[in-house]
Amino acid sequence: MTDIKSYMEEKLLQFEPYMLDRVQLLQAPDSLKEAMAYSLQAGGKRIRPMLLFAALETYGQDAEKGFDAACALEMIHTYSLIHDDLPAMDDDDLRRGKPTNHKVFGEAVAILAGDALLTYAFEMVASSKLYSAEQAVKLISMLAKAAGPSGMVGGQVADMEGEQKALSIEELEYIHHHKTGRLLAFSVMAGAFIGGADEQDTKRLETYARHIGLAFQIRDDILDIEGTEAEIGKPVGSDESNEKSTYPSLLTLEGAKLKLEQELDSAHEALASLNRPAPLLKAFADLIAKRNS
Amino acid sequence: MTDIKSYMEEKLLQFEPYMLDRVQLLQAPDSLKEAMAYSLQAGGKRIRPMLLFAALETYGQDAEKGFDAACALEMIHTYSLIHDDLPAMDDDDLRRGKPTNHKVFGEAVAILAGDALLTYAFEMVASSKLYSAEQAVKLISMLAKAAGPSGMVGGQVADMEGEQKALSIEELEYIHHHKTGRLLAFSVMAGAFIGGADEQDTKRLETYARHIGLAFQIRDDILDIEGTEAEIGKPVGSDESNEKSTYPSLLTLEGAKLKLEQELDSAHEALASLNRPAPLLKAFADLIAKRNS
Repeated sequence: MTDIKSYMEEKLLQFEPYMLDRVQLLQAPDSLKEAMAYSLQAGGKRIRPMLLFAALETYGQDAEKGFDAACALEMIHTYSLIHDDLPAMDDDDLRRGKPTNHKVFGEAVAILAGDALLTYAFEMVASSKLYSAEQAVKLISMLAKAAGPSGMVGGQVADMEGEQKALSIEELEYIHHHKTGRLLAFSVMAGAFIGGADEQDTKRLETYARHIGLAFQIRDDILDIEGTEAEIGKPVGSDESNEKSTYPSLLTLEGAKLKLEQELDSAHEALASLNRPAPLLKAFADLIAKRNS
Repeated sequence: MTDIKSYMEEKLLQFEPYMLDRVQLLQAPDSLKEAMAYSLQAGGKRIRPMLLFAALETYGQDAEKGFDAACALEMIHTYSLIHDDLPAMDDDDLRRGKPTNHKVFGEAVAILAGDALLTYAFEMVASSKLYSAEQAVKLISMLAKAAGPSGMVGGQVADMEGEQKALSIEELEYIHHHKTGRLLAFSVMAGAFIGGADEQDTKRLETYARHIGLAFQIRDDILDIEGTEAEIGKPVGSDESNEKSTYPSLLTLEGAKLKLEQELDSAHEALASLNRPAPLLKAFADLIAKRNS
């Protein structure tokens, strides 16, 4: 995994300032820009942009070609975290070990900073010089579907309605597929689309994305039990104390670990059937399934 | 104004079910769709869609050609009202005489219904069969700029920062131009753009839009003093009790009425310089400046 880590470090050195500049250059109240930038740079791992770049490079294109779509993706991911942390939602004071947006800027500005990031995400793609009009429209449509009422926001509502209720494994999977899976899948699909993947490969990558999305969530649930607070940036065991249905609570910890292995295997299988080698996407699957934070 | 009223009624009969169907047809949790539809159909006057249709018809195109852009516009307007009414923001219990979204569905769902409407708005345009890819990308870029951090959301932040502070007339105008003016201007500009207005007319319509945007806000402030609660759907005098800077508080009530007349005159002047007659846009300016609710 050394290769993938140095790949990520190299790309981040270019991508991070590019993304933050997009916010700094806005003509908007300073307090709003500050709140947007605060959460954008609050130490995320940038898994989604990296997946997009990896998919792009699989089809022989430079990561830079994905920068505006990746900014949009990360802005939407970040807005969802800001709104998720609000007192009316999960009421979290800490995110990745730092005070949450509303703790620093107040609830009203946090709501608006989220709204601003969500709206600006679509402007990033629509105004981008990297894509043709046809590409931009398709990317926006894919992104809005992944993030909106039939995607992430719908999953969020289903998640709230499922709280403190015994869920079946199918219900849990529905929630995760929508709440986190759809945006992770967009990362891969957007890279493949910009890179010009054919229909067959696109379908295989959709399968890959679905499995790493679930692997991501199962690993999250396992870390909530086995991780240390320093590693995961929030109190360990918070799922259990919230009485939330999780993979370990439905399948036992051992069962969850087995399912994680199966998802990882399925992801690798989907990659093996691609028309071309995909070493970066392969390494990402391992990284997601084995991460400690 | 009889003509314009019957024009609006006729268009609404087609547009309302079209817009609500877009929500009903979504594959999303029922509770989310219900919350989105509740605020979408909470008795708005649809001034923005109507302005878009009127601009379109000025350039010889059917209103139907504007339906998807108008849906997006009204969804974004509606999301902004839902978030605006939240306890952390204006903390309003009533909107147009009906309980606000969070009063009916709870704060968490209200936040998410707003997020869903905002995201879905962009999908409406990106997935529309009414526009070419070039048109859709341009419309999305215009809409995101009008609604995002350099537009409506930025105006909202400036408004909050200006509360309980004596503002200059320039500061008040900055707030209104961004908070409400930019989206009203988009209505006109989007119609002109889809209709194929030339560059000169586009500039004139931008001037028209700016003046009716200010007229709209000044009329709002006057109604807050002179209107009846039944007409405006919220307590009369709420600006004064909030110690908010308004046109009447800065200019006196008479001064505000004079400024309203001036804005209306400037709007009419801009229309008179267009390459073609614009009776609908003319009637809209009068409607906005003289409305009682």
